[in-house]
Amino acid sequence: MTLTTTDPRTGDATDSGIEPTTAEEVAAIAQAAHDAFLDLRTRPRAWRADLLRGCADALEARRPELVAIAGAETGLAPARLEGELTRTTTQLRMFADAVDEGSYLEAAIDHAGPTPMGPGPDIRRMLVPLGPVAVFGSSNFPFAFSVPGGDTASALAAGNPIVAKAHSSHPGTSRIAFEALAAGVEAAGGPAGTVGIVYGQPAGTALVADPRIAAVGFTGSLTTGRILLDVIEGRERPIPFYGELASVNPLVVTPGAVATRGAAIAEGLFASVTGSAGQLCTKPGIAFVPAGAEGDAVVDAVVSLARDAAAQPLLNGRIHASFDEIRTRLVDDGAARELVAPVAAPEGYGMSPAVLEIDATAVTPAATEEAFGPLVVLVRYRDLAEVTAALDAVPDSLTATLHVEDAELGALAGFAADLADRAGRLVVNGYPTGVRVSWAQHHGGPWPATNTLHTSVGMTAIRRFLRPFAWQDAPAALLPVELQDADPGIPRRIDGSLVLPSTLTA
Amino acid sequence: MTLTTTDPRTGDATDSGIEPTTAEEVAAIAQAAHDAFLDLRTRPRAWRADLLRGCADALEARRPELVAIAGAETGLAPARLEGELTRTTTQLRMFADAVDEGSYLEAAIDHAGPTPMGPGPDIRRMLVPLGPVAVFGSSNFPFAFSVPGGDTASALAAGNPIVAKAHSSHPGTSRIAFEALAAGVEAAGGPAGTVGIVYGQPAGTALVADPRIAAVGFTGSLTTGRILLDVIEGRERPIPFYGELASVNPLVVTPGAVATRGAAIAEGLFASVTGSAGQLCTKPGIAFVPAGAEGDAVVDAVVSLARDAAAQPLLNGRIHASFDEIRTRLVDDGAARELVAPVAAPEGYGMSPAVLEIDATAVTPAATEEAFGPLVVLVRYRDLAEVTAALDAVPDSLTATLHVEDAELGALAGFAADLADRAGRLVVNGYPTGVRVSWAQHHGGPWPATNTLHTSVGMTAIRRFLRPFAWQDAPAALLPVELQDADPGIPRRIDGSLVLPSTLTA
Repeated sequence: MTLTTTDPRTGDATDSGIEPTTAEEVAAIAQAAHDAFLDLRTRPRAWRADLLRGCADALEARRPELVAIAGAETGLAPARLEGELTRTTTQLRMFADAVDEGSYLEAAIDHAGPTPMGPGPDIRRMLVPLGPVAVFGSSNFPFAFSVPGGDTASALAAGNPIVAKAHSSHPGTSRIAFEALAAGVEAAGGPAGTVGIVYGQPAGTALVADPRIAAVGFTGSLTTGRILLDVIEGRERPIPFYGELASVNPLVVTPGAVATRGAAIAEGLFASVTGSAGQLCTKPGIAFVPAGAEGDAVVDAVVSLARDAAAQPLLNGRIHASFDEIRTRLVDDGAARELVAPVAAPEGYGMSPAVLEIDATAVTPAATEEAFGPLVVLVRYRDLAEVTAALDAVPDSLTATLHVEDAELGALAGFAADLADRAGRLVVNGYPTGVRVSWAQHHGGPWPATNTLHTSVGMTAIRRFLRPFAWQDAPAALLPVELQDADPGIPRRIDGSLVLPSTLTA
Repeated sequence: MTLTTTDPRTGDATDSGIEPTTAEEVAAIAQAAHDAFLDLRTRPRAWRADLLRGCADALEARRPELVAIAGAETGLAPARLEGELTRTTTQLRMFADAVDEGSYLEAAIDHAGPTPMGPGPDIRRMLVPLGPVAVFGSSNFPFAFSVPGGDTASALAAGNPIVAKAHSSHPGTSRIAFEALAAGVEAAGGPAGTVGIVYGQPAGTALVADPRIAAVGFTGSLTTGRILLDVIEGRERPIPFYGELASVNPLVVTPGAVATRGAAIAEGLFASVTGSAGQLCTKPGIAFVPAGAEGDAVVDAVVSLARDAAAQPLLNGRIHASFDEIRTRLVDDGAARELVAPVAAPEGYGMSPAVLEIDATAVTPAATEEAFGPLVVLVRYRDLAEVTAALDAVPDSLTATLHVEDAELGALAGFAADLADRAGRLVVNGYPTGVRVSWAQHHGGPWPATNTLHTSVGMTAIRRFLRPFAWQDAPAALLPVELQDADPGIPRRIDGSLVLPSTLTA
C-alpha cells in the first residue's frame, strides 16, 4: 500500500506512489551504507568538500520542483520554502568549507619524549567518522531539518554515509531531495550507498535497530524520541542518539523594557509566535509580561494582532488535532484564560492564532505544555522572583529570551544567569526564531529540549558524528595525512601548543 | 556499621572507622555541591587553575601517608603507587595549564552582519560547566582513577564541583585523598562543597539519582555500569554517564614481527600482561601469535616466564574469586588449553600468572571474557584472515596492538584499519599498558569498552563535563570575559577563522 500525503491548505489527500520500505530493503540499504563507509574514509577531505558542494548544486538544480511539492505537502508559504532551501544549500557549502579548514578534526601530536612519568611514546589523535548515520527529519522543515538538512550535511561532512527516514507528512519532497543528493554523489563519483532513504514508520524503527547504523540524528517530538531511545536500548551495541525534542522557549520582558518599547515588543513577539504558523522549535511559547498598565498594553496589542490574523495551514492532521487538544488542556488543566480563541479555516488544516493569559503564581507544569502552532501563553508577573518561581515549573528549552534595558543589567545579572541555565541559547532584545547557521551557533539545550551536549545547527554539529582515535608510535604509512609530520594545512595541537597551518601564518 | 578493608597481601581485615553515608547525608552533600557550583562559576579561570595546582600540592603533602595506606588497601607495590601519585598530581597541573590556555572553551564569535539568509544577529558561543559531577573511581588505580583522579581533575578544570564515591576496597585511601583535595579547596578560598565524598554502595546509587548531580564519571565493570545506567534511566532528567567499562585489548603479532623479534615480544607481552598483577584496563588479554615454530617459541617463552613468576596480590576478594571463575570458564566453555595454571599464594589474594592457548578458528565469545588479573589467552593463527574472523567474536576494546615489520605495512594497511575500528587507540610495536597523559591521548573506544565518544585520560577529557552555550546580541555585561570583544588571551574562532591570542602572535 503506497503512502498518501495531504495538502494542508485544502485537506485533499493524494497517493504519493511511494511504497513503504520493507525490512529486507532496510537491511540492504544499511549494508550499502556500511560498504560506502569503508570507501568514503579512504577519500581525501578535499573530495568530501566537493561532494557537499555538488549536493548543494544538485538541490539547486531541482529548486522549483522542490518548492512546489513542499508547498503542497506542508502548506508552508513559497517565500519561506525558498528561504529554507537557500539555508539548506548554504549550510552544505559551509560544511564543505569547514571540512577544508580542518579544525574539526582536533588533530594533535605529542612527540615521544620525557614526561614526569618517564619516557612517553609518540601519540597522535584526531576525530574519525563513526559510520552510517540515520537521519530523522522533522515535519516543519522539509529541507533544512529533513532529508538534505543539517544532520545530513554534518554527518556527510564528518565522512559518514547517511540513511534518511522520510517524514510521513512530506514523502514526495523527501524523495526528490534524496534524488538530488544521490545525483550529487554520483556526479562526484561517490559510492551509491553514501545516501539512502527509507519510508514508513516500521522502516524507521528497523533502521535504528540495524547493527550497521552507528548514530541517529533526530528532530521531532519527545514521544517519538522516547520510542527510538527504547529501540536503541534493545540493541546489542548502544549508539548515540542526538534528539532535538521539545521546547517552550520562555521570553521575559522586564519592567524597563515594557516601559520603553512595549508596543514594539508586542509586534515582535506576535511575529515570532506566528511565523511559519507557530511551528518552529524555537517559537516563544510562553512570555512573561509585567502586571500593570504597561504590560496590559502589550497584552492588548498581541490580542488585537491575533484577532486580525488570518488562519494559516498547520503541517498535518496530527498537528492540527493536537493543537486544539493542547489548547483545551492549557485552559482546563493549566487554568489559563483564553484571550483569543483560534478559528479553524473552513477547509484543510488552517488555524488562526491563540492567545492565553495566566498569572505567574498560577503557573504549573500543566500550563507549560508545548503547543506546536500559533499559540502563546502570556504570563503576568509582579516581580522577577515570581518569574523565577514560575520558570521552575517550565521545562528547560532550546532558547530563553530577555527583553531588558541597559540600566537594568547590573541588577539583573543573577536573574539572567539563572535564565541561561534553563536553555542552550540566550537571546537579548530579539526573538529566538530564525536560527543563524554559523560557527558560534548553539541549537541545543538541557533536557527535554535535547538529550545531548551538542548542537544540531552550525558548524560544531559535526562533532556528533565523529569519535576520537589515537595512534601510538605508528609509522607514517598507518597515519592519516592530517597526522603525518608534514604540515597538512590544518590547525593542529603539537606538543600541547595550538599551531596554525603555514598557509595562514606565512 | 563501619566499613572494613582487607589487606590483599595478608587477607587481614581492618575496621576503617568510616561509616557508610546515609541518604540524608548524600542529599546534603549534593546540595553543598550545587551551592558551590553557583559560586565557582563566578570565579575566573586563573583562580581555578590555581585551585588545581593547590590540590596537587595538598596531595603531595600527604604522599607518604597516601602511599602507605594505598599499599595496605590495594596490595600494589610502593614504586607503582609512588608513580601513580606522581601521575595524579601531574595531571592536575596539566589541567591547570589547559584551563589557562583556554582552547577547551571552544570560544567563537560571529559578528552581526549580512548572511545568505539576510541580516544575521551577533552570536557568541563557548562551553560552560554542567554542574556537580559524581566520580566513581576504580579499584585498580587508588589515585589516578579514583577520588583525586582524571575524572575529578577534568570535572574541576571544567568548573564543576565533584562528589566522589569512595571505592569499597580502598575507603581509607579515598578518605585521605579527599581530605587533601578539601585542604586544597580551603587554601584556595573555594566553597566547601567544591569536593565531596560518599561511602557505601547505597550512597553511590543515591548520588547518581540525585537531581542536583549533572553528570557521572565511572571507571569499573560493565555490570556496575549497567546498574548505574538503569538508575539514570529512572531519573526525571537524564544525565550523561561516561563509563569506562570492559576491555580485552587484542594484540596481534605478524609473521614478520615474530620472525624478527619473537623473543623480545614474548618478554614485552609478559611484562604488559603481568604489570600491576594484570589489573589494568589496557592489559592485552588476548594475543594473536602465528602458528608454527617461530610462534611456538613465543608461546614457550611466555610459558616459561609465567612458570617462574611469583604470585602478586590481587586487589580484593571479589577480583580474586572472579579471576578463578573466569579462568575456569575460559577452559570449560571457551575451550582454551591451560598452558600455565595460576598458583594462589598461601595467604591473602596472591595469584601467579595464567597462560591459555586456543586456535584462532575456535575463538568464540566464551573464549574472550575479560579476566582481570595476570592472564593472557594466546591465539594461534595461520593467516591474518583467521585473525579477522576471530576478532569478530572479540568485544571491542580500549586498545588494539599490532607488532609488525615495516616491509609488511603495505600489504597490511587494510588489516590495520580493520583492527583500529575495534578500538580507541592503535599501538604499533609497543604495549597498550602505561597510558601517557597528554593532549593527543585517547583512552576510550567502542562499546563495551566505553559508552561514550570521549576520552577519560588526557586533556580532552574535559569536554565531557561542559556544554555549549550561545549568546545572541548580548551586551558585554552579560557575556563571559572570554567572549567579550577585547582579546582575553585565548584562541577564538572569530567570524569563522581561528585566531590565536595576541600573546602568542605578537
